[in-house]
Parts: sequence; C-alpha cells; structure tokens
Amino acid sequence: MSDNTTHDPILAAITFDANGLVPAIAQQHDTGEVLMMAWMNRESVAETLATGRVCYFSRSRGKLWRKGESSGQQQSLKELRLDCDGDTILLLVDQLGVACHTGRRDCFFRAARDGALVEIAQPLIDPDALYGHGHKHG
Amino acid sequence: MSDNTTHDPILAAITFDANGLVPAIAQQHDTGEVLMMAWMNRESVAETLATGRVCYFSRSRGKLWRKGESSGQQQSLKELRLDCDGDTILLLVDQLGVACHTGRRDCFFRAARDGALVEIAQPLIDPDALYGHGHKHG
Repeated sequence: MSDNTTHDPILAAITFDANGLVPAIAQQHDTGEVLMMAWMNRESVAETLATGRVCYFSRSRGKLWRKGESSGQQQSLKELRLDCDGDTILLLVDQLGVACHTGRRDCFFRAARDGALVEIAQPLIDPDALYGHGHKHG
Repeated sequence: MSDNTTHDPILAAITFDANGLVPAIAQQHDTGEVLMMAWMNRESVAETLATGRVCYFSRSRGKLWRKGESSGQQQSLKELRLDCDGDTILLLVDQLGVACHTGRRDCFFRAARDGALVEIAQPLIDPDALYGHGHKHG
C-alpha cells in the first residue's frame, strides 16, 4: 500500500478531538477478533495510510507509536474505515503474533461474570521476551 | 441478566477519563461485526450490567442514552469485557435491527480506498422511520 497517493480527503473527513486525537479500533481482518483500541493523531493516520503499517499516537509517551517497533508484533493495514460521525476509526489489520503488551492475542481478556472480572485468555508469549523489562507497549 | 448482583468490583477496575467516561466498542456477539463505538459513564455501565440492555452516555446530550429507547434498535448485552489497561470496554451484544443512526447495520460504512472514502454499505432502514425528524441517535 506504500505509494504516492495523497490521503488528504480521508484526513479531512476525520474529526480529531481537542487533543488532536481519534480513537482507533484494531480488528483482525479475517477472524473478526477485536484486538485493541488505541489513539491516532493526524500524523499517525497519514503514516499508516502511506506505509500500510499501523502507527498510533502514544498518549503516555507523547509521540508516534509504530506498533511492533520494539516488540516485533506489527500490524499490517488491510483497510481503514471511518464511522458515521467521523470520530472513530476501525482498522482492519493482520496482526503478527500478539496485540497485547501482556503477551495475549488481544487486550480484552477480562470478562464480567457474576459481578467479577474473570480472565478468559492466557499469554501466548512471555511479556519479558517481548520488551525486556521496563517497557509497557510497543 | 437482571438480578441483585453487585457490580462494584467491575466498576472499580474501570479507569474513567477526566470527564468520567470510558470508550465502549459494541461488537455483534455471533458474527464479530464491529457495530459502533460510544461512551459510557459509571452509571451507564452499572445500568447495563444490571439490566442486560446496553446504556451509553451521550456526550452531545449530556445524559444517559439507552440504546434503542427512541429508535427501537436495542442492544442486548451478551458479555462485557475490559481491556488490559482498564480504559476501554468491549461489549458483546445482540443488535436488534441496525446500530447506526443512518439506518445502516454498523457505523463503519466508509472505507479508505485509493485516497478517498467509499461507502461500502447502504441503509437497511430509512432513518426518518427510525426517529422521525430532528433526532440523531437513539
């Protein structure tokens, strides 16, 4: 998907919030799994569309977050969709390995059952193997 | 799911933002379709868990938004999941009719293709039939 296409009409249709961010849902394109939700700014949307590799904006680190840059668990973009109000993005992706920094396939591994949260998935990869120590996301 | 279960441990695990809100993704439980993204406050999460009918918080109207209350297009809760950081909710639902105020099944009907947004789904229901005139969501 890397080419010289201008993505200005797409960027213009997105309503970024007061912080210049828009929530982005990542969904595995073929299975429908909802992998994670993160935030994008204008620059990260433009980069994602230009390169075909998903790039978010890390609110905690205050900078672009090229998913998988440190962990190797990249997301290839299959399609970017925008909702009716233009204020939420749905990314259809191909997730390499795991999406979650805990080593689980997706981030939504806690389910409310009988008034408590129950873990419904186990790590597939040791998080220390993903990042070494001291990192949270990547 | 309506019973006397206390949901305090679940509510305590959710990180609400500075406005007291948390983003909630609604996914059709059996097909995996991502239907919409909206916001919940503490009260709407508690009501949703207590009643089994999804209730959001409308930022534009500044009040609880019982999905389908005016449109009839209700969402029954199948399971509520929380992500690793506790700041995003995934609602597995059974969507009656359509999720989108435009009359489409889901809100993500615009896809980025070759630098432009293309509509990839058509309304299944006339929006005027959902709300009459003057309403946007419901």
